[in-house]
Amino acid sequence: MLDKTLIVSAPGKVILHGEHAVVHGKVALAVALNLRTFLRITPCPNGKVLIHLPNIGTRLCWETSQLQPLLTMFPGNPEQVDKLKEFAGLTDGVSANNSLATVAFLYLYLAVSSKYGALPSVDIVVWSQLPTGAGLGSSAAYSVCLAASLLTVCGVIGCPLEEGEATARWTEEELDLINRWAFWGEQVIHGNPSGVDNAVGTWGMCLLISALLGLWMWFHVPLVLLPPQFPAIMNPVLASIDAISRECEGVLEAVAACPSQEHYPVLEELFVINQHHLNVIGVGHPSLDRVCQVTASHGLHSKLTGAGGGGCAITLLRPDTAPSVVEAAIQDLRDCGFECWETDIGAPGISLLSPSSLKAEVLQMLNGF
Amino acid sequence: MLDKTLIVSAPGKVILHGEHAVVHGKVALAVALNLRTFLRITPCPNGKVLIHLPNIGTRLCWETSQLQPLLTMFPGNPEQVDKLKEFAGLTDGVSANNSLATVAFLYLYLAVSSKYGALPSVDIVVWSQLPTGAGLGSSAAYSVCLAASLLTVCGVIGCPLEEGEATARWTEEELDLINRWAFWGEQVIHGNPSGVDNAVGTWGMCLLISALLGLWMWFHVPLVLLPPQFPAIMNPVLASIDAISRECEGVLEAVAACPSQEHYPVLEELFVINQHHLNVIGVGHPSLDRVCQVTASHGLHSKLTGAGGGGCAITLLRPDTAPSVVEAAIQDLRDCGFECWETDIGAPGISLLSPSSLKAEVLQMLNGF
Repeated sequence: MLDKTLIVSAPGKVILHGEHAVVHGKVALAVALNLRTFLRITPCPNGKVLIHLPNIGTRLCWETSQLQPLLTMFPGNPEQVDKLKEFAGLTDGVSANNSLATVAFLYLYLAVSSKYGALPSVDIVVWSQLPTGAGLGSSAAYSVCLAASLLTVCGVIGCPLEEGEATARWTEEELDLINRWAFWGEQVIHGNPSGVDNAVGTWGMCLLISALLGLWMWFHVPLVLLPPQFPAIMNPVLASIDAISRECEGVLEAVAACPSQEHYPVLEELFVINQHHLNVIGVGHPSLDRVCQVTASHGLHSKLTGAGGGGCAITLLRPDTAPSVVEAAIQDLRDCGFECWETDIGAPGISLLSPSSLKAEVLQMLNGF
Repeated sequence: MLDKTLIVSAPGKVILHGEHAVVHGKVALAVALNLRTFLRITPCPNGKVLIHLPNIGTRLCWETSQLQPLLTMFPGNPEQVDKLKEFAGLTDGVSANNSLATVAFLYLYLAVSSKYGALPSVDIVVWSQLPTGAGLGSSAAYSVCLAASLLTVCGVIGCPLEEGEATARWTEEELDLINRWAFWGEQVIHGNPSGVDNAVGTWGMCLLISALLGLWMWFHVPLVLLPPQFPAIMNPVLASIDAISRECEGVLEAVAACPSQEHYPVLEELFVINQHHLNVIGVGHPSLDRVCQVTASHGLHSKLTGAGGGGCAITLLRPDTAPSVVEAAIQDLRDCGFECWETDIGAPGISLLSPSSLKAEVLQMLNGF
């Protein structure tokens, strides 16, 4: 059992191309997003388990002796979470986010403890830069942080951060284990997740190309194929989206080999084409069209990302896009009532961090409670 | 040689689906549009040939003896029109519309005369409800009217309008001849026309379903296949457009079998999907997007039709669309600077008309000059 405070961090994810098409057996192109979730875990001698989630105003505390009887549930499966919900006193009055985050924590905490040893007494704070429910992988980043920290505290995986290092990552085998456990957490939260989000949260970028473009990972997700309406019309659209994802991968490879402005018009055109396709598939939304119009009026190109029907849009910023243009676009979007985050893609996956490597804002959120 | 005044009329055409895809070997769905071109031809004893085109402010007059020497050009081909242009005194200063309309007339007049008999002395007026250069088949309607009237005056085809009848049409064989001659006129005007427009102008509706939906005709046009950019992305889009044209044909058949409101949402959805596809192909235009937005704000569904990159959009009006909605949409469109025509599709092809069957406006345009 580890006896020092750990800070871990996992990135969100954004789907550049292939959302929805992926459920019809096509590929999706997902990249790590440099909006991150941070978790501080402190082993403590008081026999208590505390978890504090300032983003959603949740603070819970149990005696490990209270949790002991629940171990008889394990090994179990993530569908058997009703007992945990009941135990945590979560009723229908509690928001879904609160409820699911708490249950996912209890599930991972008890399952790891059941498999690898006694219940550790820990104090946990998780804070995230990611909006929830926006298709940006916030629940996966949460699950990945929980899995990595619990597995490390229980001594299942090593603690690779050496004295004086700012950040460190685990071995490929350890990351594989983190990813598998995080997937259980995702199942508690989502029921039938694709596995894309926790994989991106675990492995992050494969290749750092620039501040803007980084990791890409291919996923062939064997989900149930939902038959589209008008198959003769829609199947070719899915095939086109598949080709867009692959074309985009090729362009990103080219950017990796030789960073150059010439690639960005192609990336922009792929955004525009795919946005039309997503509208054809029927997952557009007037708000997303509005984002596309507003950014287009500033010469920027956007598409929806993730679930659609609302949610998030992504706008491509070229390296040579003037900051004044970005600021003006953000102002117009805010005037329309949209929230904006300016970030980059190609972030590292789950990492151990030294406190000194953290920005003041993050430290404050983790320590301020 | 016929010695009585004839009035003929041919419809424009509108492509419901498949514009552009047709040049990549796909089908297009074209229907006759009830905006028409009218031609009055009066044999006269004065040895003159007069043609008056009030839409474009053209009025020309020749002695048949002046035209006689030009017969040596025939049989010729429509590319050899420079001599006709030179003869007609058309210079670069004359607008393209004027020049092409005059040359197409001279070509058809001389070619028919050369093949079937002496040069008739005639007085011709052609007036059209169709805008020119909008992809609505105005040049084809003009060529079809010229071919039908000249072939009738020269006695090559019959004059089927009986005393007391309002309208009459020719036999299938005669229509086939009209269509072939009209195609020569189209070649003079367009160089390499598809043959769709003159066929629609000649045959018009195959089936009158309602005031709204009528003729459909399939065209497999064997043009040069232009390779699209990103073939893996674009070829499926063309396949989807092809499927839309075929699906629309199926829906129109269903409407024909059983007119019912239930079919219109499908027709609307096909409009919306295809409009996205046309934007993907790159033939959209901000003005066309504007039309789609304005009509969408009234619950109406639009797409570009024809050449794209400007030109015309079509908006589907359901039989149960309230006139007040249509009026409000038209007003908004006019406020944006667009011209609007409210019409229906499924119009009859080239017809002989009695003067008494004409609306006052048409009679005035044909007789007022």
